[in-house]
Amino acid sequence: MNNLSSRSESYLYEQVVEKMTGLIGQGVLRPGDRIPSVRRLSLQMHVSISTVLQAYLLLESRGLIEARPQSGYYVKVRAEKIPPEPRTSTPYASATPVGVGELVSKVLQAASHPEIVPLGAGVPSPDLLPVRQLNHVMAAIGRRRGAAAIGYDFPPGNEGLRRQIARRSLDWGCHLSTDEIVTTCGGMEALNLCLRAVANPGDTIVIESPTFFGVLQVIESLKMKALEIATHPRDGIDLEALERAVKRNKVRACILIPNFNNPLGSCMPEKNKKSLVEILARREIPLIEDDIYGDLYFGVTRPKTVKAFDKHGLVLLCSSFSKNLAPGYRVGWTAPGRFKFKVEQLKFMNTLATASLPQMTIAQFLDSGGYDRHLRRLRKSLATQVQRISLAISRYFPEGTRVTRPSGGFVLWVELPKSVNSLELHRKALREKISIIPGCLFSAKKRYQNFIRLSCGHPWSDRLEQALITLGRLAGKD
Amino acid sequence: MNNLSSRSESYLYEQVVEKMTGLIGQGVLRPGDRIPSVRRLSLQMHVSISTVLQAYLLLESRGLIEARPQSGYYVKVRAEKIPPEPRTSTPYASATPVGVGELVSKVLQAASHPEIVPLGAGVPSPDLLPVRQLNHVMAAIGRRRGAAAIGYDFPPGNEGLRRQIARRSLDWGCHLSTDEIVTTCGGMEALNLCLRAVANPGDTIVIESPTFFGVLQVIESLKMKALEIATHPRDGIDLEALERAVKRNKVRACILIPNFNNPLGSCMPEKNKKSLVEILARREIPLIEDDIYGDLYFGVTRPKTVKAFDKHGLVLLCSSFSKNLAPGYRVGWTAPGRFKFKVEQLKFMNTLATASLPQMTIAQFLDSGGYDRHLRRLRKSLATQVQRISLAISRYFPEGTRVTRPSGGFVLWVELPKSVNSLELHRKALREKISIIPGCLFSAKKRYQNFIRLSCGHPWSDRLEQALITLGRLAGKD
Repeated sequence: MNNLSSRSESYLYEQVVEKMTGLIGQGVLRPGDRIPSVRRLSLQMHVSISTVLQAYLLLESRGLIEARPQSGYYVKVRAEKIPPEPRTSTPYASATPVGVGELVSKVLQAASHPEIVPLGAGVPSPDLLPVRQLNHVMAAIGRRRGAAAIGYDFPPGNEGLRRQIARRSLDWGCHLSTDEIVTTCGGMEALNLCLRAVANPGDTIVIESPTFFGVLQVIESLKMKALEIATHPRDGIDLEALERAVKRNKVRACILIPNFNNPLGSCMPEKNKKSLVEILARREIPLIEDDIYGDLYFGVTRPKTVKAFDKHGLVLLCSSFSKNLAPGYRVGWTAPGRFKFKVEQLKFMNTLATASLPQMTIAQFLDSGGYDRHLRRLRKSLATQVQRISLAISRYFPEGTRVTRPSGGFVLWVELPKSVNSLELHRKALREKISIIPGCLFSAKKRYQNFIRLSCGHPWSDRLEQALITLGRLAGKD
Repeated sequence: MNNLSSRSESYLYEQVVEKMTGLIGQGVLRPGDRIPSVRRLSLQMHVSISTVLQAYLLLESRGLIEARPQSGYYVKVRAEKIPPEPRTSTPYASATPVGVGELVSKVLQAASHPEIVPLGAGVPSPDLLPVRQLNHVMAAIGRRRGAAAIGYDFPPGNEGLRRQIARRSLDWGCHLSTDEIVTTCGGMEALNLCLRAVANPGDTIVIESPTFFGVLQVIESLKMKALEIATHPRDGIDLEALERAVKRNKVRACILIPNFNNPLGSCMPEKNKKSLVEILARREIPLIEDDIYGDLYFGVTRPKTVKAFDKHGLVLLCSSFSKNLAPGYRVGWTAPGRFKFKVEQLKFMNTLATASLPQMTIAQFLDSGGYDRHLRRLRKSLATQVQRISLAISRYFPEGTRVTRPSGGFVLWVELPKSVNSLELHRKALREKISIIPGCLFSAKKRYQNFIRLSCGHPWSDRLEQALITLGRLAGKD
């Protein structure tokens, strides 16, 4: 899947993307300006032509530039309209018990009604999922292997599926074996089991700020404390802040989403991933790495996992097929490194086993190549949807709004003017049958009162545009 | 499903069964003796003819008596051969941390290999399950409702399934509404969520002795302590012992299996269920009631749940479809009374949602009446299998062996001579490709060193008989 010839080309590719994005964002290059030709930039930056070309394709998919036939690439007229990014977060430096559970379940339950515009829950639209193919595979397995489909498949879980995951792990820079993997009832169970394997009630767990409310819920339900670390909206967790935190606090574990953090969309550069592993290894702090969005990159390369750099078995990699294939199948997995035995024990004790037929179905779909074909389409759709909603925000949201530039996944993190209370906005929006997630759910300290998370999991439509106009109005756009 | 006209008839029915079983067990009535005619006993005991008849049918299904055409009922020649029952357990009266998890997963993993004779894990044979029908229903739902089948179904879970469960709850003396129920990833998750909803790490939890190792695992994984209470092999937990225990200890909750306890097969009489609820209500102690075997009764009536007598919302009823329909679907549920909100929150935090398609499939199968038809066949098969294995034990196991008389479910609890170490026996058996469960797994204190649990979930076969002959030899039968 990696079209770039080497690791250094991959790094240079990131450099090109960053440089051009910066030039456009800062207004050095303005709408309608011609940007350097592929050949010229290739010479300037000592980068291969194909790398520059791929970087330009990404910028194009992000709506920043456009190709004009026979003429080259130009900054898109509308590109400047996307509001600026939020700044790096500045959380307080103390651990705190968590209490977001109740609000989360209300938000999710509200979000699952069909008459509500789904900008809330981070769920991909069924229109983007291979519904018919999966049901077809499932029915065939039921006919051919009926008894197995109905019987238990005890931990570590379905072997065929674990083998497929192990094969794919090469794409993320890992070399997992089938035996290193335990399947789970979705990604949430994976996070749960891993956290229970490495920490106890009362322990302090480092997280990004903001972070996925599911991470906060797991910490909450296990009566642990969360320590929020400053996080950059594009590069992820601030490693200096992390180093300070682990020096000052007795940190038992970290839970991070290095690839396309939810809600920021940030993706840690490779060098940061390496440093992260080193910082944590020095203190033997386990890292629970949630890679649930890793396959949903908009660029040309699948970002590596942090686990790719782990030499000590300290990284517990977690993921699932809920965001990219079949949310309702509830199939997740973890490769918990040196904690595998404990995680497997806890899996027995938590849910005994994962549903058999969904695992068999996914294994078959992966094996047949259907998953890769599906992912190619899905990534394209999601990149487009993120772009459309970003543009709508620029058009319909009040002055002072900021929005992230995710390079994967399908959520946007929107900073509204300070005067906006997003919990209030959430309630008002729900009355208009629009679901959004208020920012306070992404912080143990209930920060981000004027932020919201918007899901871009559904294809663009008039209904979506109307909802965004309404949201903008409710948020104070005059 | 209840063919007996009233509650008092149901009570009298139990009296008849008990009386005749006693007379045969004590040798008052001996093999080949004619037992009182239906009419005569009806007059003697002031019980209706149909009640006596139904009691006799149960005794017949248990292999204690046999009908001879035109002549009446006789004590079966082989009836006396079933070894006596184990005595009421006598556990120590102190709470203890639990550590059975590792051994359990080894036993279960070993048990799931097809070349191993499956007397271990409590799993019904796929031959007894409606494999084709379920796969047919599932495929049809996939075609008709593909998008829903692939999407999330957030807690409290699939509404259709909850409605079906609520409808059935009338059979257990409950009047649950759809809204009182939360679906879960199997029965283990239900137990987990309920225990987390009512107790904290370090708390003392009352359990039967012996009890299902899954209960011990849940307590272990949540770092709570188990307090084992004496339990009668037929009537369940000893209520006097329970009263003493809750007086002497700060008991935070109970987890009991009142209907067909695993491994004992005991079923609490209704009056005991009523008393139990009263004892616990006086101290506001929540009862987690595991009713996973409740539908698998061998008699004519479905035993009531303890929850049927609960006036204070203190009973958290748990069950699943893993023992009687589709283990691999991982669909369980709970009706957690006054703790429903908390349980629902924890469900979000533990696994987010239960797999959608398995829930939809079971709902449809229940609605169509397929489940009841299947249960009628299954109960008959299980009663026969329990009987066949009991007889084989009498024939092939050493002198001094005792075995339970379950009136439902499909496990036998076998007490071997004191000299037998059942963990050792388990290892030896496994070398002969026979899976059994050693007794120590059913006690937090690793008691029951000379007990084993045998699963009767598979149809009788020569292979099974050979395995029982081997087991008897390994256990010291000369």
